[in-house]
Amino acid sequence: MSDHSSPLSGQLAAAIDAAFPAQTMFYADLVRFASTRGEEADCQDWIAGQLRLRGYEVDRYTLDQVALDGLAGFSPVMDTDYSRAVQVVGTRRAAGPAGRSLILQGHVDVVPVGPLALWDTPPFEPTIRDGWMHGRGAGDMKQGVAAIVFALDALTAVGLEPAADITVQTVTEEECTGNGALSTLARGYRADAVLIAEPTDGTITRAHVGVMWFRLRVRGIPVHVMQAQAGTNAILSAFHLIQALQAHTARLNEAAKADSWFGGVGDPIKFNPGVIRGGDWASSTPAWCEVDCRISLLPGWSLEEQRQGILDCVSAAARADNFLANNPPEVEWNGFQADGYVLEPGTDAEQVLAAAHEQAFGAPMQARTSTAVNDTRFYGLYHRMPALCYGPRGEGHHGFNERGHLDTLRTTTLSIALFIAAWCGVRPISAPSAAPRPAG
Amino acid sequence: MSDHSSPLSGQLAAAIDAAFPAQTMFYADLVRFASTRGEEADCQDWIAGQLRLRGYEVDRYTLDQVALDGLAGFSPVMDTDYSRAVQVVGTRRAAGPAGRSLILQGHVDVVPVGPLALWDTPPFEPTIRDGWMHGRGAGDMKQGVAAIVFALDALTAVGLEPAADITVQTVTEEECTGNGALSTLARGYRADAVLIAEPTDGTITRAHVGVMWFRLRVRGIPVHVMQAQAGTNAILSAFHLIQALQAHTARLNEAAKADSWFGGVGDPIKFNPGVIRGGDWASSTPAWCEVDCRISLLPGWSLEEQRQGILDCVSAAARADNFLANNPPEVEWNGFQADGYVLEPGTDAEQVLAAAHEQAFGAPMQARTSTAVNDTRFYGLYHRMPALCYGPRGEGHHGFNERGHLDTLRTTTLSIALFIAAWCGVRPISAPSAAPRPAG
Repeated sequence: MSDHSSPLSGQLAAAIDAAFPAQTMFYADLVRFASTRGEEADCQDWIAGQLRLRGYEVDRYTLDQVALDGLAGFSPVMDTDYSRAVQVVGTRRAAGPAGRSLILQGHVDVVPVGPLALWDTPPFEPTIRDGWMHGRGAGDMKQGVAAIVFALDALTAVGLEPAADITVQTVTEEECTGNGALSTLARGYRADAVLIAEPTDGTITRAHVGVMWFRLRVRGIPVHVMQAQAGTNAILSAFHLIQALQAHTARLNEAAKADSWFGGVGDPIKFNPGVIRGGDWASSTPAWCEVDCRISLLPGWSLEEQRQGILDCVSAAARADNFLANNPPEVEWNGFQADGYVLEPGTDAEQVLAAAHEQAFGAPMQARTSTAVNDTRFYGLYHRMPALCYGPRGEGHHGFNERGHLDTLRTTTLSIALFIAAWCGVRPISAPSAAPRPAG
Repeated sequence: MSDHSSPLSGQLAAAIDAAFPAQTMFYADLVRFASTRGEEADCQDWIAGQLRLRGYEVDRYTLDQVALDGLAGFSPVMDTDYSRAVQVVGTRRAAGPAGRSLILQGHVDVVPVGPLALWDTPPFEPTIRDGWMHGRGAGDMKQGVAAIVFALDALTAVGLEPAADITVQTVTEEECTGNGALSTLARGYRADAVLIAEPTDGTITRAHVGVMWFRLRVRGIPVHVMQAQAGTNAILSAFHLIQALQAHTARLNEAAKADSWFGGVGDPIKFNPGVIRGGDWASSTPAWCEVDCRISLLPGWSLEEQRQGILDCVSAAARADNFLANNPPEVEWNGFQADGYVLEPGTDAEQVLAAAHEQAFGAPMQARTSTAVNDTRFYGLYHRMPALCYGPRGEGHHGFNERGHLDTLRTTTLSIALFIAAWCGVRPISAPSAAPRPAG
């Protein structure tokens, strides 16, 4: 499928093929880190080492070292310790830069694995079956990190270096706040374009929704179940709130039908009660229940208005419930307060990527709209850098038997290498550089 | 109010008054033990010491030392360690018994406290306010244990001893299985009557419901919330099952209207989803949800039939739910499989207690039906001993600011002392016995 008619494409493809066993090892090494929220440091330190081996100048810091509060796009933080939230930024500066600079970004945080019994193989024991790498993060998005690093390696392998500054960022918190990406901007990193190698299966993300997280807290005075009447059970009252929020979501999806990007997507606003905890004893009516929820909003919608909509919905529902009327529930914003983002068509960056994609895959790059959020909003919406969300093929993200497709990863690595070459420009390596060595 | 016209009643009342500060201390000492499930050993060992001080022969054992499985009334055991479940039986044998023997029983296990913020004073720091002792277990039922011990002390104080064998039992597991009470029977303890000093506020429990505990386990394949459609969320599917069980409960309450004891009680069958846990991440559709439930049944109803009713209800509901139809839920019987019990009117034991009550309180003893289970069933239903559930006044059981009423405790102690004297007969203490000493 690939069009290797250009000499550079053929050379890069050969280099990527030659390094693909090493890239596969690197990818597996990444998946082996159980880098759930708060546990990313080992993975990040390993990546920092890999970048240093390759000659990058590495900035390794933790989120508690960066003033984030009040920045555009900041999300409130709960249930975590930012002194352990390691971020890694590797920079390779061009001597006398001639081209356009580029940030290549990936996140290394992964979501919880859920019940182990539902995995065919353990989630942090990367396993190749049928041409796919399986494991938590094998799709979302450790393969993207491998693509970025080995795309750059491929240029080195053919004796070229980008003619502009390159920044490789591996961040955390993508799955809950985005504060990892935000911190790189707070720390001053900028470029003429950004590519985030999320598993888009070779599509460019034209638009993504925004997301809000909130915790419903129901608490009140319970009694022995022998005296239980309707409306004295915090679990049932929490469900009453969930039902009200489902109706609210249906109304939002009606409004979404008029949206220029998401009007054609069936019910783009998703409401998810994702975590629930309540009560202490089967024979006591539960005094408390907490539900961690996620709801989306469309690009251009106001977060503040959407938060008010949630609060109004919860208040109205509470007044109609015996238990809640006397024990008003609380809404706590405990994660994502994320705007949606549209990559407006027509940027140079997208055109260059489209050409690289077509050269690698032999077919035009398609655009998609996404009902999941990603980090591009920070670069694109608040800092006006064209932010491209584009990467390999994955399945089972946030689910079981998550996996990334190895052949697509290989071709996507080529596509990204061609994009870097075209966007930044390339020139022969000017000085002896640290040759890439195999991972490990 | 008390009728102390009989010399014995006056003497016992005076002895109980004299010892009431010590009894109050003893009661507070009991409440201070945080004897939630699995944590009762310290409390039980303290009681064993108190009984030994008073000259009782003490049998202290743990539930793992007793073969319970398969005995009538046995309930399945989960989430606990029976090697730590200490039971205490104190026996005082009459030399040449002439009267009727008696078991006096109380449980020392207490239910979880729930959110501390909802307590006016900490649940395990017993506090007297307005004539009530406050704390978890202050109502249900550490005051009953104090009443039993000090009723017997009062007889000693006036120079009398029961003319028949007396057994004092403090058990655990009353709040979840009843296996503590069951173990005393397995160990061979029997008597001509049983009194359990639950907080009945001076009423005799004519009938109590049975109770079943079960855990609903919902588990299935989730996806990223971006792909979520109806029927892919284990939390929502668990609520679907709860709603079906609520409808099932309504049908049972229709049937209950024909019951001779509970027909007049509005909705005696209570279904309580008491504990819920589900999901791992707000932005992942939850793969699992577990709900710990309690439902009651009427005396004479078959546990096996009621279990089948639950299973049929859950199966039918599962077939109507997208998620559950492909991921059938499980029902796990994880605690109480408890029959209801009726103390048929007309036993000698009840008549003797009624006379003692009237003498102490100056008013007739009323009967009540209870929509909570208690341990009498083991003695009454499976072993044909008249089993009297009768004790002091409490409030807030299983809730917040639980409390026991001190003046009622004092009078109930007298009532129980008079009952012991009349049921067992009394005679002057034959030999120097260990005098009761204040609680230490």
